Amino acid sequence: MPSSNRRRVSDSSEFRLIQAIRRQSSTGPGYSSLLKGIGDDAAIIQFIQNEHLLVSTDLLIEGIHFDLKLTSFREIGYRAIIANLSDIAAMGGIPRYVLTSVAIPPAYSQTDVRALYRGLLSCCHQYKLQLIGGDTSASKKGLFLGVTILGTVENSRALPRGGAKIGDTIYITGTLGDSWAGLKLLHSKRAQPTQRLEKRLSQFLINRHLRPTPRLEIGRWLSTHRLATAAIDLSDGLSGDLGHVCRESRVGAMIDAKKIPISPQCRSFARHKHLNPISIALEGGEDYELLFTVPAQHQTQLKDIERHDGVQITAIGTIEPRKHGMRIKLANGSSHPLVPTSYDHFRKKNRPV
Amino acid sequence: MPSSNRRRVSDSSEFRLIQAIRRQSSTGPGYSSLLKGIGDDAAIIQFIQNEHLLVSTDLLIEGIHFDLKLTSFREIGYRAIIANLSDIAAMGGIPRYVLTSVAIPPAYSQTDVRALYRGLLSCCHQYKLQLIGGDTSASKKGLFLGVTILGTVENSRALPRGGAKIGDTIYITGTLGDSWAGLKLLHSKRAQPTQRLEKRLSQFLINRHLRPTPRLEIGRWLSTHRLATAAIDLSDGLSGDLGHVCRESRVGAMIDAKKIPISPQCRSFARHKHLNPISIALEGGEDYELLFTVPAQHQTQLKDIERHDGVQITAIGTIEPRKHGMRIKLANGSSHPLVPTSYDHFRKKNRPV
Repeated sequence: MPSSNRRRVSDSSEFRLIQAIRRQSSTGPGYSSLLKGIGDDAAIIQFIQNEHLLVSTDLLIEGIHFDLKLTSFREIGYRAIIANLSDIAAMGGIPRYVLTSVAIPPAYSQTDVRALYRGLLSCCHQYKLQLIGGDTSASKKGLFLGVTILGTVENSRALPRGGAKIGDTIYITGTLGDSWAGLKLLHSKRAQPTQRLEKRLSQFLINRHLRPTPRLEIGRWLSTHRLATAAIDLSDGLSGDLGHVCRESRVGAMIDAKKIPISPQCRSFARHKHLNPISIALEGGEDYELLFTVPAQHQTQLKDIERHDGVQITAIGTIEPRKHGMRIKLANGSSHPLVPTSYDHFRKKNRPV
Repeated sequence: MPSSNRRRVSDSSEFRLIQAIRRQSSTGPGYSSLLKGIGDDAAIIQFIQNEHLLVSTDLLIEGIHFDLKLTSFREIGYRAIIANLSDIAAMGGIPRYVLTSVAIPPAYSQTDVRALYRGLLSCCHQYKLQLIGGDTSASKKGLFLGVTILGTVENSRALPRGGAKIGDTIYITGTLGDSWAGLKLLHSKRAQPTQRLEKRLSQFLINRHLRPTPRLEIGRWLSTHRLATAAIDLSDGLSGDLGHVCRESRVGAMIDAKKIPISPQCRSFARHKHLNPISIALEGGEDYELLFTVPAQHQTQLKDIERHDGVQITAIGTIEPRKHGMRIKLANGSSHPLVPTSYDHFRKKNRPV
């Protein structure tokens, strides 16, 4: 019985309340094999000898996480798995099993449903994931996907969000902002088909949105060589996800705006749309790149590496004491507080543009 | 891009197609610890020494699985966990961890969301489950809950759906049809508040709907004493869920209508509403009782037991050769084919009344 005359959940304090309730629930005595509950990219459970089990879950909702006017059923199915693979990548793990629950409005056709499952299965096949369970039901309005992923990682090798130390260097894989630019291009393709960017450039960005690459190989490399103190995948946007790392690690951070890796394609897009590419990179989200922190003793191993497994790796800043908060140094040398303006599902307006 | 001019998913052949796609996906080489994929109450994975991990997931959708006009937020939260606990009970396992994803329309109040989480957490607390992860986001329309549960069971002690053998006796815990009767009472309470049944009787049935008891103790008893060859929880209704056991076990079944356990309260309800109580019990669903099959050598252990852990246990029939199909013997001695008319989310009209 929704009570519409009271304060609404769009108030972000509510989000904090929920987080608090959930956090509360994971404390206290429980089954002894739990190693990490709420608060990281995945929960960690003691598994078979020498291995930990990683568990993560996501809910994808039509009109919130995807738009059937812009994206095909197959693409939605594919992308639903990617978001979860990225959580396993951020833990340094190997994805193993997936469970998918699908709720489908009765008006959707057999062909649509088949395409959705084809997308889910093609992603599972590509990443050697086994679909081991799930649920299919009707929905009254809108398509809903629930995805739960299970992965494994060697004992004590999971990359936490909360391990960053003062002096650590902050690294980013790949380039940021492409996914958001791709999404905007999908929108404008429908709205103003004449105002298109050069086709190849536009295709690159759209592809980065529709078929992002979870950085599993890099996650494994960081985990097996114990290179990183903390890691997170960039689903909310750089400022928001760095905020998660700082909060969980009880540290601050300084990042250098001009070092943030932005693709030439995203820069062209920003010029074309009269937008600030740094702002897109900071707040865009859904790039599914990794952010990780590396202590001084491992810097030498990373200093000369510009790529791993074909993926660019860029140092963008340093972990600082908590009291400094999160800051960004702009091109003109001035530094400013960096406010986490991650893509908040309750406040969509916060996104750039 | 829904293609409304083609065949719709409400066609039940589509459901079979999806099942086929999903089944296909769980075959082939994979990570070696998978013991059972799609097709049972939960997937089974080799876990820490001597234990198997059980994993199950469910999606609960406003307007399909619950109605906010009839049920409070707290009750919905509580019940969302019960459905998953029942899957673990049907495997003979111990529930350990749960992950909950919640999608909330922005118009719902903080109080509503708090009540929902209170319901979720009170059920977790009652059953010593730890909430270890999840996701919270907005939904455009309607409340959505995704629940994933993890449980454990001793090696090779999980109760399968597919183990029933010819000659096994079919047992049922508790009474059937109460939940469906309770739901109808909730409806009629709103529609015709004058036509109420005696309050205590009505409250019993409503409570059976809102706060069903997962039969965890009985599941454990069957599993640790290796008493049952197959087990399933009755979420779809007796005819539908017995159908699952017969299909997975490649057997038929004969059940005796007059032996089906029906509570005096449900019988009164049926009389009052001019309904056949047997039909309610067969097709009602959501009772979360267990159906299990017991081989001849263990019958003596069960024959004299009318209750276990305070819960009634009733023999209702026998497993027969597959070629006989599923049949029901009526009070007049005649026997008829039993058609699985489980609660199909795509064809709600199939429910009794």
